[in-house]
Amino acid sequence: MPDPHVVIVGGGFGGLYTARNLKDVPVRVTMVDRHNYHLFQPLLYQVATAGLNPSDIATPIRGIVRKQANVNVLLGDVVSIDTSKKSIALTDGASLAYDYLVLATGATHSYFGHPEWEAIAPGLKTIDDALDIRRRVLLAFEAAERETDPKKQEALLTFVVIGAGPTGAEMAGALSEIARQTMLRDFRRIDPSSARVILLEGKDRVLPPYPPDLSEKARQQLVRLGVEVITNAIVTDVTTDHVSIGERTIATRTVVWAAGVAASPLAQTLGVPLDRAGRVLVEPDLTIPGHKDVFVIGDLAAVRMRGEQWVPGVAPAAIQEGQHTAMNLERAVDGQPLRAFRYNDKGSLATIGRAAAVADFGRFKLSGFLAWFAWLAIHIFFLIGFRNRFLVITQWAWAYLTYQRGARLITGRTSTERSP
Amino acid sequence: MPDPHVVIVGGGFGGLYTARNLKDVPVRVTMVDRHNYHLFQPLLYQVATAGLNPSDIATPIRGIVRKQANVNVLLGDVVSIDTSKKSIALTDGASLAYDYLVLATGATHSYFGHPEWEAIAPGLKTIDDALDIRRRVLLAFEAAERETDPKKQEALLTFVVIGAGPTGAEMAGALSEIARQTMLRDFRRIDPSSARVILLEGKDRVLPPYPPDLSEKARQQLVRLGVEVITNAIVTDVTTDHVSIGERTIATRTVVWAAGVAASPLAQTLGVPLDRAGRVLVEPDLTIPGHKDVFVIGDLAAVRMRGEQWVPGVAPAAIQEGQHTAMNLERAVDGQPLRAFRYNDKGSLATIGRAAAVADFGRFKLSGFLAWFAWLAIHIFFLIGFRNRFLVITQWAWAYLTYQRGARLITGRTSTERSP
Repeated sequence: MPDPHVVIVGGGFGGLYTARNLKDVPVRVTMVDRHNYHLFQPLLYQVATAGLNPSDIATPIRGIVRKQANVNVLLGDVVSIDTSKKSIALTDGASLAYDYLVLATGATHSYFGHPEWEAIAPGLKTIDDALDIRRRVLLAFEAAERETDPKKQEALLTFVVIGAGPTGAEMAGALSEIARQTMLRDFRRIDPSSARVILLEGKDRVLPPYPPDLSEKARQQLVRLGVEVITNAIVTDVTTDHVSIGERTIATRTVVWAAGVAASPLAQTLGVPLDRAGRVLVEPDLTIPGHKDVFVIGDLAAVRMRGEQWVPGVAPAAIQEGQHTAMNLERAVDGQPLRAFRYNDKGSLATIGRAAAVADFGRFKLSGFLAWFAWLAIHIFFLIGFRNRFLVITQWAWAYLTYQRGARLITGRTSTERSP
Repeated sequence: MPDPHVVIVGGGFGGLYTARNLKDVPVRVTMVDRHNYHLFQPLLYQVATAGLNPSDIATPIRGIVRKQANVNVLLGDVVSIDTSKKSIALTDGASLAYDYLVLATGATHSYFGHPEWEAIAPGLKTIDDALDIRRRVLLAFEAAERETDPKKQEALLTFVVIGAGPTGAEMAGALSEIARQTMLRDFRRIDPSSARVILLEGKDRVLPPYPPDLSEKARQQLVRLGVEVITNAIVTDVTTDHVSIGERTIATRTVVWAAGVAASPLAQTLGVPLDRAGRVLVEPDLTIPGHKDVFVIGDLAAVRMRGEQWVPGVAPAAIQEGQHTAMNLERAVDGQPLRAFRYNDKGSLATIGRAAAVADFGRFKLSGFLAWFAWLAIHIFFLIGFRNRFLVITQWAWAYLTYQRGARLITGRTSTERSP
């Protein structure tokens, strides 16, 4: 009889750490992902702001698991799951049978019932998103350089980031740095340092999941970098030439969306209870109700910690859930009962810009250069693959010393391009 | 009175070297390009074959000329030239007046009267072309891994490169290396080293501009790398599932076009004689007949050397023409007569793969490792910008030692992707 077949959907932190920890377990593993790479999402904003190249933060999944003989990788997009037949369906009509299923397809952005805003204000979840945002930001400076109408020029040099969680705060800080440092002497007609970067947050402070004193430190660092922070700002409209917050209107041509989380729609095909964001309300052992052979982990899962607290949607949580699920799969194959998952909160870190960050390690808190250095070390440490780590250090050292951002390329079809 | 206005169209080698050599000349320079970057085209095939990142071989034009106060950069696409009114028209309706015009918009591929082949067999001229080819090649391996029909699998693992000039030979060698080394242990069902790479050439030998003995050496090195070379192969049809050479048919899903040269169509709006490839037949001083204020350089120009010999369409020629034109512009501003251009042929180099290349320095010829090393040194030396040079060396050293290609990412919208 062949070894049991474990199908893992999603090659993010959750899926990858499950697969790697099944190395010595007698199972056949198939990893399915719609992309051929594992993405280090915490640094995606660096690609969007031209600091890093896509391949610095992404590694082909096949390369990561090539030495693990029991893993098979499939490029494909899963459309639905049939838990009674124990099989998943792919977009091309093929299906894949499993003995155990691990769902780790993550989350995307929620536009709060305004799907029409997505085309105007892209979110930041994939490499293509990041390259799209990079292109829009760089093209806005180029268009401003050519614009003669001062009002239009001002709108072109106004960048709005919606949502002041870690991604939004990092984006805003990096955008402000680009305008005030990197681009400073690149243009002749416009003064890039006159660009406005506006960070909007619906709640009453930036980085809402952090303790209030760190939120305040983060706000001060953002302001020092030149970011205008507006809290209690409920966005009521997003169009191609402005963003509205109730009565107030901000003229802008470039909007980045970093608010709201919606779980991958695949969860809806499971037929189990979901929370408001579409996440699967999993059992303590991370399986779904009634199916001890289906695990849901990472941003797709709503995992209760204690009382009304939930495990946050961060990389360390997905990694721990992946490790735990691999251990539970080994127990299941062995005929032993599954164990409940317990989240070990090691703290949180958010960076805001050059030498600016905040860190919350529970017992102690950091901000400024020390927090930034801790952030740098931890993020480089977690990058998959030695090559990436080394190249990222090199590029960051270069960027830090010279204020240059090497990946300032506008690629992808643009309106100024015509076929020859 | 303001300094004379020099408009340079195209930020390739020709345009950039003209601008840089006008540093101390009392002129105002405007560089217009449809991309915001200068591209080191000789290494573009390395991006297409996942060896390098786009930003390793491309540098923002603004960054290159930022310290040169008399240069202005404009992102824009020129549609026509009016030599009587001394102005150029841009796609967005704007126009730009010049005192002197330097046209350096280069060349694209010619499909020999079969424009319908372009969508199936992309050429390799821009970063987007390279990323497109990279995506197609990597997706072909992924599709082969999923395919169960052996005939279809074989077609998916057959790669055809049309044209065995330097670009075609380099592409074929690199593709063969990817299949035989990089991808070797990445797949479980297919054997990537069973992939066929077929290089088609219409003439009777590879690298036709090189001496016959070097062509033969290059052919031997290609064969050693696993490339099937077919000469005297006139392609009669290119479809989504095969390439025809007369009666013979090759089943393939991935075709790269590296044959034929067609000058940028902008030349047609000048109203002066062009050669068969659409290049401008320039005067000995690189101006166009009847207009001493319009210079045409680089791949857009047909420059006679002596007798029936023409200056080749290579980077060193464009660089020398740019330097010469800057000198002539200085003379023109000074009221002195223009000087005729003389091409200084420093030799040619083509690489075929890991430690394989041929070099023709006139007095002596090289092949194998020494030629490859010379190629490496010269190409890195010519890369614009220290950062790129350093990163490219790092990435190459890593790739050389480990056989890995780090930029193996499939980006851009693909058929397996759906919006969430």
